[in-house]
Amino acid sequence: MFESPRTHEENVRFECAGVAVIRHTIHKRGLLLPAYTNTPKLVYVEQGRGIQGAVFPGCPETFQSSGQFSRDGSQSSEDQHQKVPQVREGEVVALPSGVADWFYNNGDSPLVLVQLLDTSNPANQLDQDFRNFFLAGNPQRELQSQRSSYQRDQFEGQRGRQDEDESRRHQQDRNRNVFGGFDEQILAEAFNINTRLARSMRNEKDNRGIIVRAEHELQVVSPHQSREEEEREIEYRGGPGGRFNGIEETFCTARLKHNINDPERADFFNPLAGRLTTVNSLNLPILRSVQLSVERGVLYPNAMMSPHWNMNAHSIIYITRGNGRIQIVGDNGQTIFDGEVREGQVVTAPQSFAVVKKAGSQGFEWVSFKTNDNAQVSQLAGRVSTIRGLPVEVVANSFQISREDARRLKNNREEVSVFSPSQSGRSGEIA
Amino acid sequence: MFESPRTHEENVRFECAGVAVIRHTIHKRGLLLPAYTNTPKLVYVEQGRGIQGAVFPGCPETFQSSGQFSRDGSQSSEDQHQKVPQVREGEVVALPSGVADWFYNNGDSPLVLVQLLDTSNPANQLDQDFRNFFLAGNPQRELQSQRSSYQRDQFEGQRGRQDEDESRRHQQDRNRNVFGGFDEQILAEAFNINTRLARSMRNEKDNRGIIVRAEHELQVVSPHQSREEEEREIEYRGGPGGRFNGIEETFCTARLKHNINDPERADFFNPLAGRLTTVNSLNLPILRSVQLSVERGVLYPNAMMSPHWNMNAHSIIYITRGNGRIQIVGDNGQTIFDGEVREGQVVTAPQSFAVVKKAGSQGFEWVSFKTNDNAQVSQLAGRVSTIRGLPVEVVANSFQISREDARRLKNNREEVSVFSPSQSGRSGEIA
Amino acid sequence: MFESPRTHEENVRFECAGVAVIRHTIHKRGLLLPAYTNTPKLVYVEQGRGIQGAVFPGCPETFQSSGQFSRDGSQSSEDQHQKVPQVREGEVVALPSGVADWFYNNGDSPLVLVQLLDTSNPANQLDQDFRNFFLAGNPQRELQSQRSSYQRDQFEGQRGRQDEDESRRHQQDRNRNVFGGFDEQILAEAFNINTRLARSMRNEKDNRGIIVRAEHELQVVSPHQSREEEEREIEYRGGPGGRFNGIEETFCTARLKHNINDPERADFFNPLAGRLTTVNSLNLPILRSVQLSVERGVLYPNAMMSPHWNMNAHSIIYITRGNGRIQIVGDNGQTIFDGEVREGQVVTAPQSFAVVKKAGSQGFEWVSFKTNDNAQVSQLAGRVSTIRGLPVEVVANSFQISREDARRLKNNREEVSVFSPSQSGRSGEIA
Repeated sequence: MFESPRTHEENVRFECAGVAVIRHTIHKRGLLLPAYTNTPKLVYVEQGRGIQGAVFPGCPETFQSSGQFSRDGSQSSEDQHQKVPQVREGEVVALPSGVADWFYNNGDSPLVLVQLLDTSNPANQLDQDFRNFFLAGNPQRELQSQRSSYQRDQFEGQRGRQDEDESRRHQQDRNRNVFGGFDEQILAEAFNINTRLARSMRNEKDNRGIIVRAEHELQVVSPHQSREEEEREIEYRGGPGGRFNGIEETFCTARLKHNINDPERADFFNPLAGRLTTVNSLNLPILRSVQLSVERGVLYPNAMMSPHWNMNAHSIIYITRGNGRIQIVGDNGQTIFDGEVREGQVVTAPQSFAVVKKAGSQGFEWVSFKTNDNAQVSQLAGRVSTIRGLPVEVVANSFQISREDARRLKNNREEVSVFSPSQSGRSGEIA
Repeated sequence: MFESPRTHEENVRFECAGVAVIRHTIHKRGLLLPAYTNTPKLVYVEQGRGIQGAVFPGCPETFQSSGQFSRDGSQSSEDQHQKVPQVREGEVVALPSGVADWFYNNGDSPLVLVQLLDTSNPANQLDQDFRNFFLAGNPQRELQSQRSSYQRDQFEGQRGRQDEDESRRHQQDRNRNVFGGFDEQILAEAFNINTRLARSMRNEKDNRGIIVRAEHELQVVSPHQSREEEEREIEYRGGPGGRFNGIEETFCTARLKHNINDPERADFFNPLAGRLTTVNSLNLPILRSVQLSVERGVLYPNAMMSPHWNMNAHSIIYITRGNGRIQIVGDNGQTIFDGEVREGQVVTAPQSFAVVKKAGSQGFEWVSFKTNDNAQVSQLAGRVSTIRGLPVEVVANSFQISREDARRLKNNREEVSVFSPSQSGRSGEIA
Repeated sequence: MFESPRTHEENVRFECAGVAVIRHTIHKRGLLLPAYTNTPKLVYVEQGRGIQGAVFPGCPETFQSSGQFSRDGSQSSEDQHQKVPQVREGEVVALPSGVADWFYNNGDSPLVLVQLLDTSNPANQLDQDFRNFFLAGNPQRELQSQRSSYQRDQFEGQRGRQDEDESRRHQQDRNRNVFGGFDEQILAEAFNINTRLARSMRNEKDNRGIIVRAEHELQVVSPHQSREEEEREIEYRGGPGGRFNGIEETFCTARLKHNINDPERADFFNPLAGRLTTVNSLNLPILRSVQLSVERGVLYPNAMMSPHWNMNAHSIIYITRGNGRIQIVGDNGQTIFDGEVREGQVVTAPQSFAVVKKAGSQGFEWVSFKTNDNAQVSQLAGRVSTIRGLPVEVVANSFQISREDARRLKNNREEVSVFSPSQSGRSGEIA
């Protein structure tokens, strides 16, 4: 999904990265239907706010929703379910492979989500296709168009963004939710319901797509552990494979989200240039099982990132604001990408390839998804760079330059990671 | 190896699972010849009893066999070797990749073994073929027919069982034990034996197959650590790569087997429906290195398992008794398998795909091999299900049903995992 | 890269092993230019001595080089850089994926390096090509010829050695260092230098190849931590992704090398036969992240190694001295390699395949790179062998031999791993 690719080589890179990027725009009162995938997911909340549910098997239902909209208003209308945290702009949510999740926009402006799905992740034992298993709805139209437009992006590199609710198109193939493939009688028996209701689960005549508008606003209040729930837990056996088997300890109480937008949390901050913030398994431990991490970058106008390479990960760069120039260089010194990019576009920097980003006149902001839970970067310029780590005589002999020039190469840029615009003008003729 | 496949798609699933299933029937006094493979193995003892040896490099020979059948009867006829545990019906034996093992039937009825070989396991660095390296015999006929009939199962989905001792057929290809590929002189020198004996190791004129009948009954008595053995150990250097290097600590004393048939060990037990027992790395730690686990299920007549999906593993289901119906549903809601299955058949449920099992009139029993040492399941119905974890309003809006119906969907089935037949008859019209 | 292959099957084995082997000969004052790869590397110093730098991002520059050859002689000519250890014949150096390294020959005789690059390593997320990213020079000629001659070795099995400095040949393709792919203006700005110097970094007219001769000898003195350096460290933020984030703790102080040639460190030593020494993650912990290990073998004339198989690794055998015979046997008992090998040749024994090595009249020495950080071998003959671990009755019944012969098979060879020539002459007719 390179913007304006120069050769088809770039698409190979993207394919090689083994990931998919999907953007959802959920309008007010919109519900992104519950689904799970064969891959872990990272979700960046680009805009808006909402609530988000992730259902982990065996975790207790410790949240309750009020029943104020129920028709009878009785006590029985109270409902218990798993926790439903608020999410808001600038947060990253991590979802392990196979966990069903849903999002609901309870704000006033659109909720925009950018999802990374890592099909090459060791957690995926299926093939390299990304597969979405919807638990409800009738995803035939949207899911298909979503996948095909994703593939178009991948193989033709044409579009840089996908808005789910803009892509309702003609599609012949039948795609259904997972209940659609089960026998009605078996569903009725499994849920101990009548066949009319079992038929409803298949949503066969549902034309709403994968994001539906809630008839009434969803009400969720703060959590409390009910006595009934506590008592129920006693019944379960604690044996292996049962309810208390490690998954629960790991996931039921695990934090799934982290704010990556807060300037106070930046790992590198340069008042003249911008900032860089990382969420990895050290500050969001669930990422250890997901084996992904995220970097958030903000460059002020004309500032730049140190040229660098990703040592142990691919980097999938989604531009969230502004414009800039990205160059990516391969192992033969070939430039595999060189272009102006802007908000909503995606560029992949494969592992080991050298990358540089330079902000345009409006500044430049992005989120980079990385295919390692503790992704490492090696910088080429600046105070913690590879060049700085080489003896001056190695630099001089390598480049056939004088020791004075070698010292300039090593020492002229004292900043780390985030570089201010060259003090001496565009050409930097100060040395 | 799907029974009565509907499309060739199913074989792809099986191939994708990257496993092989082989069934051996060893008659009284039969010896399954020593061999190792390029994959880890799980062996389920379906029937009978026997002894089993697994030879770990560097582990001490702490068992001895009596010499009562030796011709001279002298003291020197005592023999020391590695431990040789008894195995019996209902046990699972775990064998790491590259460990040579053998089985011997010292009971009175046939010893029936069902082996899972995981070629996709990270421990296998070769290609996706399963390769058996026999240390003795002349496996040309059987090994070949075994592999070809396995491939037939895989690619044509015709047969659901393979009895090794029924498959003695014509085969032109030469397959030999590993000694067959070495030069006779080199073997003689390595073992410090004469060339006549070296030639015997190659077993070139052996027509007995991979399961041979022992001339005399094998005698193995209880273990004791000989003084000589203890003294020998002192000679070895304890350095890295040597005898005391972690493998030994891990494997020499490790338990390799676990009874999965004992109702007392069930993780879920429902007196009206059946039981479910899991062996994973939490109760059989060797599985951490093998990265596989096993589930044993027993359903009473007409009971069913909660519809569910495997979150982090493929599930290779071998039916051990009775009959039932299995449905498997893919990511587009397509039914990739829907059929009656019975004893001796194998069905693979790929990771993420939704599965339901319902017992027939004779009840239904199986063993599921799972490609993760701590395989996790997410249930769709019942008290610890995904649907139960969703807020009632999410359920109502997702399925376009009333809140009352949503509550029924969530709460009508209070059981966990193993469901009794619907109280209100086949159609379950009670809601 | 099998010597004198018998079938093209053998090349498949090598390809299957997913590794590349490259030999560099660096003459006096030669500098192998700084570069990184998409794979971890193991380097065996076959001959000579030199200094070696590995630049880890974020590690402090705690070494200094004297400025005695600088033209001005001022204080400012002192230089700080990352540590630069001495390496010498018999040492193994481990380099994680993505770390830039260089070598310099500061001795009087050639420095000969044998590098293993593991493209199948989990640390490599790119495809199975080995990619070298040079930070300087103009590697067009040599890098290309290196890769093509590697491929020739791989697919035609013709040559057993590659001397980098012998392979300066015509090549049309443009290969450049990574700076060659960046815009000059951007480089100038990133390093805060003028465009003339930025142009020099691209080394476009450099014809020196990847090993260059230093104009002056490189001077490196012993390490000291400068006060300035200590003060600088305070500035950095300790947050995740930043400078103090685990990589540093792991790598900055990690030992990267180990002497594998010292007879005192042998794991197995037999005064009549030779010795075997292993470097794995237990004695060189960095190998845990590199997931490779090394075995060094020395056989006296006519001695042999126990026939064995590699349980959890491929073994890439590089012969360092002498001559000998190697046989490798596959799962059907087929001999996939049987030949005389000598100094400078490479043979790959795939995981699980049985191998035997026998020294010729001049003795036989090798280094085996193994694709597991704790590679395990299972021996077929000798005191800790698989055959020894089997009960004598299993051996007798398996090979259809008498118990007396079975006892001979088990017990006639009392040595471990490294076997002396058969006491009773070539045919070993003593049993």
